[in-house]
Amino acid sequence: MQFKIDKVDNNARKGQITLEHGVVNTPAFMPVGTAGTVKAMSTDTVKKTGSEVILGNTYHLMLRPGMSVIEKAGGLNSFMNWEGPILTDSGGFQIMSLSKLCKISDDGVRFQSHIDGSEFFLDAKLSMEIQNSIGSDIHMIFDQCIQYPSTNDDVKAAMELSLKWAELSKRYFFKKKGRGLFGIVQGGVDPKLREFSAKELVDINFNGYAVGGLAVGEGQELMLATLDCTLPFLPKDKPRYLMGVGTPQDIVESVVRGVDMFDCVMPTRAGRHGQAFTKNGRINIRNAKYAEDNRPLDEESDCEASNTYSRSYLHHLFKSKEILGSMLLSWSNISYYQRLMQDLRLAINEGNLIETVNNMHDNWIKKNNI
Amino acid sequence: MQFKIDKVDNNARKGQITLEHGVVNTPAFMPVGTAGTVKAMSTDTVKKTGSEVILGNTYHLMLRPGMSVIEKAGGLNSFMNWEGPILTDSGGFQIMSLSKLCKISDDGVRFQSHIDGSEFFLDAKLSMEIQNSIGSDIHMIFDQCIQYPSTNDDVKAAMELSLKWAELSKRYFFKKKGRGLFGIVQGGVDPKLREFSAKELVDINFNGYAVGGLAVGEGQELMLATLDCTLPFLPKDKPRYLMGVGTPQDIVESVVRGVDMFDCVMPTRAGRHGQAFTKNGRINIRNAKYAEDNRPLDEESDCEASNTYSRSYLHHLFKSKEILGSMLLSWSNISYYQRLMQDLRLAINEGNLIETVNNMHDNWIKKNNI
Repeated sequence: MQFKIDKVDNNARKGQITLEHGVVNTPAFMPVGTAGTVKAMSTDTVKKTGSEVILGNTYHLMLRPGMSVIEKAGGLNSFMNWEGPILTDSGGFQIMSLSKLCKISDDGVRFQSHIDGSEFFLDAKLSMEIQNSIGSDIHMIFDQCIQYPSTNDDVKAAMELSLKWAELSKRYFFKKKGRGLFGIVQGGVDPKLREFSAKELVDINFNGYAVGGLAVGEGQELMLATLDCTLPFLPKDKPRYLMGVGTPQDIVESVVRGVDMFDCVMPTRAGRHGQAFTKNGRINIRNAKYAEDNRPLDEESDCEASNTYSRSYLHHLFKSKEILGSMLLSWSNISYYQRLMQDLRLAINEGNLIETVNNMHDNWIKKNNI
Repeated sequence: MQFKIDKVDNNARKGQITLEHGVVNTPAFMPVGTAGTVKAMSTDTVKKTGSEVILGNTYHLMLRPGMSVIEKAGGLNSFMNWEGPILTDSGGFQIMSLSKLCKISDDGVRFQSHIDGSEFFLDAKLSMEIQNSIGSDIHMIFDQCIQYPSTNDDVKAAMELSLKWAELSKRYFFKKKGRGLFGIVQGGVDPKLREFSAKELVDINFNGYAVGGLAVGEGQELMLATLDCTLPFLPKDKPRYLMGVGTPQDIVESVVRGVDMFDCVMPTRAGRHGQAFTKNGRINIRNAKYAEDNRPLDEESDCEASNTYSRSYLHHLFKSKEILGSMLLSWSNISYYQRLMQDLRLAINEGNLIETVNNMHDNWIKKNNI
C-alpha cells in the first residue's frame, strides 16, 4: 500500500492511501460493517454517502459465517458485494469485550463464542491467516486490549504482550500488492507507556500505526491528552488511525492533532435508535415536537435520506417501529460523518483548518452539542 | 379514472387504469404499505421492482400518525415520498381483525385502537373523508367483513349492511379527476349472496369492483369457486380487484378468471421471515443447505437483490438477524411478484395465457410448490 500526503495544515494532513481495492482520501471515516454488512444499509447506499473504505470485524466473521464460508465466497468483498477497500481489526478487542471465559496467555487467547459457547483459540498467526482469508486491504496486528481503568502493572503487561504479538503478526502477515499491516499503540493513558509502545512499533516498522485502547471510558480530555503524547512518536509519512472513535467533536479534535483514519459504530447505532446528526445539532427524532414537523432533517445536505423525507415521517417510522426508519437514519448519519470528513479535507487543503474547526465548535455550542 | 382493456384472452384481460398519479398496467399486483411504508423497502426500491401502485391501510394511518399529520404533509404521496398511484382500503377489514372491543351498528363501528386502547368511531362518511385526506387514487367503500366461517344469517346481514354503507360511501365520496371509488362484493362463500351483492353494487355504479371477504381461511378451491359465481355479475368494462390475495398460484388462477388487481402482504412478510420466491420454487434461506451456496437466489432475475447476493450471504444475514436480510428478500420477493404479473400480461397480449399458466403449474409442481 502507498500513502501520499498532499497538504499539511499545522499537524493535520490531507492525503490518499492507495490500496488493492481502491484509493481512500484521508482524513477518512470508515463505517463499521460488523458482520459483513453496515447495519441497515445496502452497499450501494454506503457508497452513495462517499464512504471509500469500511471496517470488518474479524471476531464476528470468524464465528459467523466462519472462515470456510468467506473463503468459498472468495473473500469478504465478493461475499458482501462491496467493491472498495476493507480494513479488518485483529479480533482482539471483541474477544475481550464480548466473548465468555476468555483466557489470555503469552501464546494467544482461548475464549468461548458469545453466540453458542463453542470454544476458539486465536493468536497472532491465526489472526493473520483469517484476515488473509477475508482478503481485507488493511490488516491490524493481534493485540491485547484491557478494560479502562486497569492497574498500571496490567496496562504495562498488556502493552508488552501486544508488542510481542506485533512482531509475530508481522512475521505471519501475508504480503500482497496494495495490502498493508498496521501496528497498534497501547499503554492506556500513561504517557511513558504510550511513548515506549510507539517507539517499539516504529522499530518493527509497519505500513501504518493505530492508537488503540482509547474511547473506552476515559473521556475526551484524557483521550486527547493521550493522543498528544503518542502522535509525536509516530512517523509523519505513515497513516495514523484512531480506533473506535468517535463523536464528530472527537474526530475534529483528532484530525487537528494529525490523525488520518477513524471508525465508529456511532452513526449507524444512533440511527437505529432514532438519533440523527444534522447541521442543526443532534436530535432525537422520536421527540413529540417532530410529529408534525414537515421540514426535512437537513435541507442543505446532499444526502437523499436527509433532504427528502420529513421529520414528521421519520418520527412516524420510529414510533411505528418500521425498519425504514433505521434504514434512513443510518444512511443520513453516515452521510453526515462523510460530509464532516470532506469539510475537514477541504479546510486542510485550503490551509484554514483551525478557523473551520473553530466555526464548527461555535456552531455545535449554539446548536446544543452534536 | 379511466379503464381501458386492450386485449382479452378467454376471461382474462390486459389493460390500463389511468389515475391521478399515473397509469397502472393490469393485471396488477399492489405491494402493501400498511403504515405509509412498504416494510423494509425504500420507495425507490419499490419503484425498481416495477410496482406501479401501492396500497395504504386507512385503519393504520388514522391511528398513527393520524389524519392531521397526513393532511399537513399534503397527503400520503408526499408524506411517504411515493409519486405513483395509491389505493386505500376503507378501514373495515382491520377494525374487525385488529381492534379491541369492536361494536358494529347500522351507523358504523365503534372500536378501540390496538395500539393504545383509545376509542374511535368509523362510518362510511368518515372513511370517505379520511381517504380524501390521504389523497389516494382509488378509494374503497366502507364495508363489514366478518370472520370465516360464520352462520349464513350473519354473512347475509353483513352483506346487506355493506350494501347500505356502499350507498353512503358513494354519497360521501369526494370526486376528483383521476380518482375512483370501488364497491366491494361480500356474501361469504354463498353463491346466491354473492350474486345479490354484485348486482346491487352494479346498480349503485362504481368505478371498479372488488371481491372482499375471501382468503380468510376458506381455502383456494372455495375461493376460486366463489370467484366463479361472482365475476359473471360484474361489468366487463370495469376493473376487478381480489382483495388480500395471495400466493402466486392464487393470482394466476384469478387472472385466468378475469381479475385485474391484487394486493397481499405475503411477499414482504415472507421476505422478513427468510422465505424467498424464486424461479426454482419457494425456499427458506435459513435452511443449513444454503450456508455455503454461492449461487444467487435467482440468476435469471433482473432484480439486483435476486441476482447479486449469494444464498450463502443471505443465509448469513438471516442467521445474524441483520436488517439487510429483510431488506433484500422483501425486494427480491416483490420483484418476483411483479415479474409474474408481467409474464401474465405478456401471455394475455400474445393470446397464450392458458399455455403459459399450464407451464407455470408444471414448473411449480416440479419445484416443490411456490
